[in-house]
Amino acid sequence: MYRSHSCGELRASHINTEVTLAGWVQKSRDKGFMVWVDLRDRYGITQLIFDEARTPTAMMDKAKSLGREFVIQVTGTVIERESKNAKMATGNVEVLVSKLEILNQALTPPFTIEDTTDGGEDIRMKYRYLDIRRNPVKDSLIFRHKVSMEVRKYLSDQEFIEVETPYLIKSTPEGARDFVVPSRMNEGQFYALPQSPQTFKQLLMVGGMDKYFQIVKCFRDEDLRADRQPEFTQIDCEMAFVEQEDILNIFEGLTRHLLKEINGVEIAEFPRMLYDDAMKMYGNDKPDIRFGMEFGELNTVAQHKEFGVFNKAELVVGIAVPGGNAYTRKEIDKLIDWVRRPQVGALGMVYCRVNDDGTFKSSVDKFYDQEDLAKWAVETNAKPGDLICVLSGETNKVRAQLSALRMELAERLGLRDPKVFAPLWVIDFPLLELDEETGHYHAMHHPFTSPKPGQLELLDTNPGAVKANAYDLVLNGNEIGGGSIRIHDKQIQATMLRHLGFSEEDARAQFGFLMDAFEYGAPPHGGLAFGLDRLVAILGGQETIRDFIAFPKNNSGRDVMIDAPAFLDTAQLTELGLK
Amino acid sequence: MYRSHSCGELRASHINTEVTLAGWVQKSRDKGFMVWVDLRDRYGITQLIFDEARTPTAMMDKAKSLGREFVIQVTGTVIERESKNAKMATGNVEVLVSKLEILNQALTPPFTIEDTTDGGEDIRMKYRYLDIRRNPVKDSLIFRHKVSMEVRKYLSDQEFIEVETPYLIKSTPEGARDFVVPSRMNEGQFYALPQSPQTFKQLLMVGGMDKYFQIVKCFRDEDLRADRQPEFTQIDCEMAFVEQEDILNIFEGLTRHLLKEINGVEIAEFPRMLYDDAMKMYGNDKPDIRFGMEFGELNTVAQHKEFGVFNKAELVVGIAVPGGNAYTRKEIDKLIDWVRRPQVGALGMVYCRVNDDGTFKSSVDKFYDQEDLAKWAVETNAKPGDLICVLSGETNKVRAQLSALRMELAERLGLRDPKVFAPLWVIDFPLLELDEETGHYHAMHHPFTSPKPGQLELLDTNPGAVKANAYDLVLNGNEIGGGSIRIHDKQIQATMLRHLGFSEEDARAQFGFLMDAFEYGAPPHGGLAFGLDRLVAILGGQETIRDFIAFPKNNSGRDVMIDAPAFLDTAQLTELGLK
Repeated sequence: MYRSHSCGELRASHINTEVTLAGWVQKSRDKGFMVWVDLRDRYGITQLIFDEARTPTAMMDKAKSLGREFVIQVTGTVIERESKNAKMATGNVEVLVSKLEILNQALTPPFTIEDTTDGGEDIRMKYRYLDIRRNPVKDSLIFRHKVSMEVRKYLSDQEFIEVETPYLIKSTPEGARDFVVPSRMNEGQFYALPQSPQTFKQLLMVGGMDKYFQIVKCFRDEDLRADRQPEFTQIDCEMAFVEQEDILNIFEGLTRHLLKEINGVEIAEFPRMLYDDAMKMYGNDKPDIRFGMEFGELNTVAQHKEFGVFNKAELVVGIAVPGGNAYTRKEIDKLIDWVRRPQVGALGMVYCRVNDDGTFKSSVDKFYDQEDLAKWAVETNAKPGDLICVLSGETNKVRAQLSALRMELAERLGLRDPKVFAPLWVIDFPLLELDEETGHYHAMHHPFTSPKPGQLELLDTNPGAVKANAYDLVLNGNEIGGGSIRIHDKQIQATMLRHLGFSEEDARAQFGFLMDAFEYGAPPHGGLAFGLDRLVAILGGQETIRDFIAFPKNNSGRDVMIDAPAFLDTAQLTELGLK
Repeated sequence: MYRSHSCGELRASHINTEVTLAGWVQKSRDKGFMVWVDLRDRYGITQLIFDEARTPTAMMDKAKSLGREFVIQVTGTVIERESKNAKMATGNVEVLVSKLEILNQALTPPFTIEDTTDGGEDIRMKYRYLDIRRNPVKDSLIFRHKVSMEVRKYLSDQEFIEVETPYLIKSTPEGARDFVVPSRMNEGQFYALPQSPQTFKQLLMVGGMDKYFQIVKCFRDEDLRADRQPEFTQIDCEMAFVEQEDILNIFEGLTRHLLKEINGVEIAEFPRMLYDDAMKMYGNDKPDIRFGMEFGELNTVAQHKEFGVFNKAELVVGIAVPGGNAYTRKEIDKLIDWVRRPQVGALGMVYCRVNDDGTFKSSVDKFYDQEDLAKWAVETNAKPGDLICVLSGETNKVRAQLSALRMELAERLGLRDPKVFAPLWVIDFPLLELDEETGHYHAMHHPFTSPKPGQLELLDTNPGAVKANAYDLVLNGNEIGGGSIRIHDKQIQATMLRHLGFSEEDARAQFGFLMDAFEYGAPPHGGLAFGLDRLVAILGGQETIRDFIAFPKNNSGRDVMIDAPAFLDTAQLTELGLK
């Protein structure tokens, strides 16, 4: 062992002990007759001291030669520090060095290894191994480990079995694009990397495995939005002989456990909200309920006058911005510009100030009187001092626009406190979703999701109205998990695939093994998958997932550190039968 | 929840309780006036009873209609069983059914769902979801979970951090073949699936992560031998600021912990053996030391007579088979045939009986007298009643042949008791290995392995003699883990790559990021990786790994259940720019 103690360990109780430490030079101060070196490792920083009076000249010179990030090993005596540093765990002591060895030299790092670094995203990614030395990244990775361990402990204690499912599976041209893997031993054929272990976990249920989980990498070859990764980690779970209620309870228990163990936050029962209500009240299937600003639908109180914009709209809907009446005209104009940005896409915004005396001043006073506006205030729950923002248009679009505005304003108002946790179940998702481009319905969750009892018949008459036993777990406005009760009957599964546009042959070719399995005694089952990257980030109080992933890829799916993907040599291509 | 209790739970204390159970029909016995059904789930079997006197006729008929593997739900009262079954945990009770629901029907399974099934390997793989219902497979998967949990617990308690490294990395044409993954977003370029997270764990050490582990899937596109899988699981570990001794101690601790917690076996310090000694004494770098039969080298005592076969041999070497003198001439002839099989490849075998009176009778009495043979007995440690088997030829080949014979005989003699655990460290592996085909040396472990201190110079003069700080952990004749101290100096790494035949450009293109990392303060580090599949199988007392893998592939790398790999449709190929 190169060390007797870590750099985070020494206290006053160690004074007069001889110790050996090893680590990186965080910084050094050279006062000529004295040199102090901050030595850093994973566990902390310890101050080393060399001084003319007590240190041989040769070692003094060596100490002066140490550069940032040199790897050194020192032996010395723990002594009391003259000027103590109460902010450091080791701040009461320092080590008077009697032996110094340089284990490895270091070039000057391309950015400072500090909590707040001078390095931009790109350079930090290229030198990720240096970035990981910084506390924010290092601590995030350790935090992730802690969360994963707690997840495993909790589920294992509940008799869940972690089963490893295969990574080299079969491509299914459903959902997102698969990454594929050419098989050398089976020329011309390909494996696919799993987008999720969905079918395998269902087969485990058919196999009687009853309570399954797995923390597992999944892969989607999608055009990457910011903060999406081509490979990501799921906590994948499935149970047999359960109903939706059981699944919600178990995984609410897991989430509550994590919030308690990891964040020290105790939360009682999680609220539940119907998908339809979430859309109506928040314009979003993953509402952030840390704050109010619920939607108020204004059709009945705003479509009775001569204002054509509202009258021809499918939906007129508003929110009350707390204290928003303090906004200047210029600030409101900027807000209007904000909703008109292409990313949001609103055509404009009507607003109404609620004065402290209870009177109203709107941008549409030409059309609406005080009595009308008072009704708007009732519907949006606006108080004196608030600002009512109103959008109108096609229902789906206007809801998405107002939801974006609501989130933006909450952010500006500091209502999205990362230390506050507001979990929420959103339930009764639609089974199908209309693809506006093709006019076809596709599965909102996946093709194995069970429709609500008694709604199978609706598939023929009104497919968009069919609700599913599908649910999402939302935390602070992020979907952290989602799942469903699955179909376990071969006939229903066949019906579902037919409705999704699969020919019988395609269904057979792709899901034959699953439908066969359903004929040999499949139990009722269902499950849920958490996105671990996102979950960890939110528990860690962050919005972005990258610092919680050791070696993330950039938005082009590249690992800029190792420079992958890369070209193959011709021999390798030929062997794989590829061009 | 479809059940109030599991099928393994009910005891005499539950008598008179109303319970609801759900599971699979294991079997039913229909005596006309009475029907018994064994209901099975993951946790056990409970007997259900229906009888004419107490069961309505309709339910009686339904009970009689139940086929094997039907999924049912029953409610009923726990009653005392008339003929108790002491072999079953639930054998004191049965459930008198008051409500019976068929949750799903089942076709007759293609093989029996019993501990000893009538299904062959192929059919069981095709219907793996049914195979998993069988106790031997189900219990193996649960056992694997238990081992994985203990590994994580132990390492986490020792401050190891599990860090997920990426699966989409870069191909390195070193070692085994990579599986590659075409990138759609970077046309013509490919990711590779990791053969191990080797470089990433070294980068984590450079990043200060100090104690890393990961239970992780790895991939090798090799022609599959029996009991090899294209995807396999490693317990991958790395530590910084350690020497070989520290690594051996930590992972000996882990293995000891597993043997104790999982198998209830306490083992003191693991013995250590030099690689050279292992080869000399057992002809094998992973000797099974549960039994003796060490090699006796006979050159000095067998090359002084006129027996040309021995005289021209590089090595004459024998083992004493305990009690082997009892073999008939016919049995010995069969043994000779066995060593001459192409899989073993010996040209012949000389033997010498050690009679109970201490005299000798050999197949080469023409050349050797009693005094000569007595010396053979001394060298092979043969006792009266033993049989000495002697092979001769080229050292490497004859050692491998005699090792194969030793293992075969031990197997036949019942010396390879799976309940006995004999761990062993084999240390000081050679750094390089001569590829006889090409005449080039390649890295025995991998190109990042550090030569022993002071041996770097030997690389130029006698590369085959250079020993490495490399070690294997052997358990019962199987390599369960292996690792090394790594190079952490850029110059030494460059020298090593040059000796392995890399041009400077190739070295740069493939390992540039690692060599760059070494310039920014790389600590001394080393590690080890366990093969989890094998480890679990051996702890579970099995020789084959397949039952410990939920969905294994066959020897052609196919998953016969889902029928993968498979052909892609042209659209998918075009999108990937592949032909």
